[in-house]
Amino acid sequence: MARKNAFYAQSGGVTAVINASACGVIETAREHRKQIGKVYAGRNGIIGALREDLIDTSKESKAAIRGLLTTPAGAFGSCRHKLKSLEENRAEYERLIEVFRAHDIGYFFYNGGGDSADTCLKVSQLSESMGYPIQAIHVPKTIDNDLPLTDNCPGFGSVAKYIAISTREAALDVASMCETSTKVFILEVMGRHAGWIAAAAGLAVEQEGDAPHIILFPEVAFNREKFLARVKRTVKKYGFCVIVASEGTQYKDGTFLTDSGVVDAFGHQQLGGLAPSLAEMVKSELGYKYHWAVADYLQRSARHIASQTDLDQAYAVGRAAVEFAVAGKNAVMPAIVRGKGKRYSWSIGEAPLSEVANREKKMPRGYITRDGFGITEAGREYLAPLVSGEAYPEYRNGLPRYTRLKLAGVPRKLKTRFAV
Amino acid sequence: MARKNAFYAQSGGVTAVINASACGVIETAREHRKQIGKVYAGRNGIIGALREDLIDTSKESKAAIRGLLTTPAGAFGSCRHKLKSLEENRAEYERLIEVFRAHDIGYFFYNGGGDSADTCLKVSQLSESMGYPIQAIHVPKTIDNDLPLTDNCPGFGSVAKYIAISTREAALDVASMCETSTKVFILEVMGRHAGWIAAAAGLAVEQEGDAPHIILFPEVAFNREKFLARVKRTVKKYGFCVIVASEGTQYKDGTFLTDSGVVDAFGHQQLGGLAPSLAEMVKSELGYKYHWAVADYLQRSARHIASQTDLDQAYAVGRAAVEFAVAGKNAVMPAIVRGKGKRYSWSIGEAPLSEVANREKKMPRGYITRDGFGITEAGREYLAPLVSGEAYPEYRNGLPRYTRLKLAGVPRKLKTRFAV
Repeated sequence: MARKNAFYAQSGGVTAVINASACGVIETAREHRKQIGKVYAGRNGIIGALREDLIDTSKESKAAIRGLLTTPAGAFGSCRHKLKSLEENRAEYERLIEVFRAHDIGYFFYNGGGDSADTCLKVSQLSESMGYPIQAIHVPKTIDNDLPLTDNCPGFGSVAKYIAISTREAALDVASMCETSTKVFILEVMGRHAGWIAAAAGLAVEQEGDAPHIILFPEVAFNREKFLARVKRTVKKYGFCVIVASEGTQYKDGTFLTDSGVVDAFGHQQLGGLAPSLAEMVKSELGYKYHWAVADYLQRSARHIASQTDLDQAYAVGRAAVEFAVAGKNAVMPAIVRGKGKRYSWSIGEAPLSEVANREKKMPRGYITRDGFGITEAGREYLAPLVSGEAYPEYRNGLPRYTRLKLAGVPRKLKTRFAV
Repeated sequence: MARKNAFYAQSGGVTAVINASACGVIETAREHRKQIGKVYAGRNGIIGALREDLIDTSKESKAAIRGLLTTPAGAFGSCRHKLKSLEENRAEYERLIEVFRAHDIGYFFYNGGGDSADTCLKVSQLSESMGYPIQAIHVPKTIDNDLPLTDNCPGFGSVAKYIAISTREAALDVASMCETSTKVFILEVMGRHAGWIAAAAGLAVEQEGDAPHIILFPEVAFNREKFLARVKRTVKKYGFCVIVASEGTQYKDGTFLTDSGVVDAFGHQQLGGLAPSLAEMVKSELGYKYHWAVADYLQRSARHIASQTDLDQAYAVGRAAVEFAVAGKNAVMPAIVRGKGKRYSWSIGEAPLSEVANREKKMPRGYITRDGFGITEAGREYLAPLVSGEAYPEYRNGLPRYTRLKLAGVPRKLKTRFAV
């Protein structure tokens, strides 16, 4: 097998551990110098390839690459850009091939979620459709935990841990204040179509009465009367009520409780402002004093309290992707496989990309309690191991020390420019 | 000196380390059994005294009390209840004396901020004004860092650390996404009248271009045009802009940028919703895609990443309060005194309560840059040591293990009830 360079890109919303996958890819590629030359990262994801804006990771020191393990967000830049079908936008594919050929790229590692898996699948088909030999391996990543064929998605465990911890902590605050002040606290969390992140807040419950008292899932149609009645009952019983609401909470007809009207490149609506809406509802109907928080990017970048399990898995899928590539595979994704035993264990399996792309894994209804406001024991058993272990970063002067890469550009070889 | 019981109460908004002060008070009182009998905690602060609803801390195990060191929020419950003057509400003072006498209470430890220092001062004067012998010691606590005569306030260092870390982390997220998506990120933080917490975000800056690019302080009149121009310039220069906004950000005439209309027991307005307002301003005027977060209670309960310096100081003021009491002092507050040396050091001093109550320490203008959007080197020097060190709690199953107290009530001795 001739030695080829590799292309690596981060795609879509970033996570606390996506750089750990990058670390896994780069470190493992460096161990296979016979097959893999250099790893070029796309500056800002796939558009870096389209623009021929590549980062030469071989210019980064071993320590800097290792530092990716403890650095949140996308060190090479990410993007929200979905390749259209070959029929719709042949120019983009031709450009990719042009760039790949110019830089002798034979491996394509794409680190993203469901939409990105679709892009990766399309790239994997370039060999056949356009006669350019390339092996495309998808490296799973999404805080939404909605990729199929993998037990869970790297990035989810850390946001789950952050939300569970924050819920427990804020609940202690509300409990302290509720006698004369705040009685209702609402934490809005990410999760557009699936309530995985909101569900993770349920891990904060250890015994009867513990917060969160109400979880709102996108999977359960929001019923205003039922919700308000539960808030009232909870405040009467415990003195306060903690609500964790998924941003995708929606009415029976599918309309979101709040809708900012902004649509992203994938056609998804940008949500936000659910917490203040719910707070107003509680205030006007029940009169309780409230506080609300919207964690937003804080939740998915919280590397300071990342899950060790999540970190290990993020690294492992990066490593496995390269191992798959050198084994000659194409159009696959390393998947996390949960062991059968009572004690949690996991290993890396292999999933065909054609079965991953554009398919969303919903949360099983059996993970949500019958009343729709909490998680079941089955849900807890699934979630608990994913938040296990604390992967603390190194600190300097009281703040986490995150790696800074050189991000040196690869000299351009093409004369043509491509507008993205 | 006859042995007397002690009363301890938590007051006002809680913090990540107020329980460490409780731990300091209780553990130190247990070392002085000759002078101090039992420590009774007010259930939900001072109203626990008014209602004769006392918690017997002697029923708590040594381990449970030690667990307070790592448990955020107010384990005994707090309240927002300010005693009026003796002239305005003599009944409340008479009731306090009745309860103190019934339970043989001779020491009053009040753990709170500026308003609470005023309450503590009033109680300290009961000996003279109403002929009941009591020693009242104030134990400083406030995330607002606005108490005078102490270099800083326990509770502030931890929220400062949380905000600085969260800003750094979220900024990496925005930097990853800005090429095709979010360009402006706004984090709303607490701080009604003083910008101490917002200022702490400035610690995230290590080199030119680092976030936060704009800090909004209550001390600096908000100028819409200047703000928007700075956002635009920052996005043009760095590709993205991170803004940390104090909830108390206000126009020149003193009106807050947003005002929920709700007023708390101390007459303060309940603020909130600044971040979405600023985001809308940015979107409508500059067209940038935004994200925003409101940390709210998450910031002040974030014990999982508390500052070790803050924790040590919170414990120390609790310990010192008891030592002051057994030394016969009254109407004083342990204060944190910063050492003169180049290397940060601190010790505990003594501040007269009459000079603490109802006085707010403003942030020196010299800590804010001339353009009003950042912190100076002097500000950084003041803030940096306060966030130093990571005081991690113990974890169990991936979540912090926080102490649960028995909170056993002290049998009532009075027949009269008192409505609060």
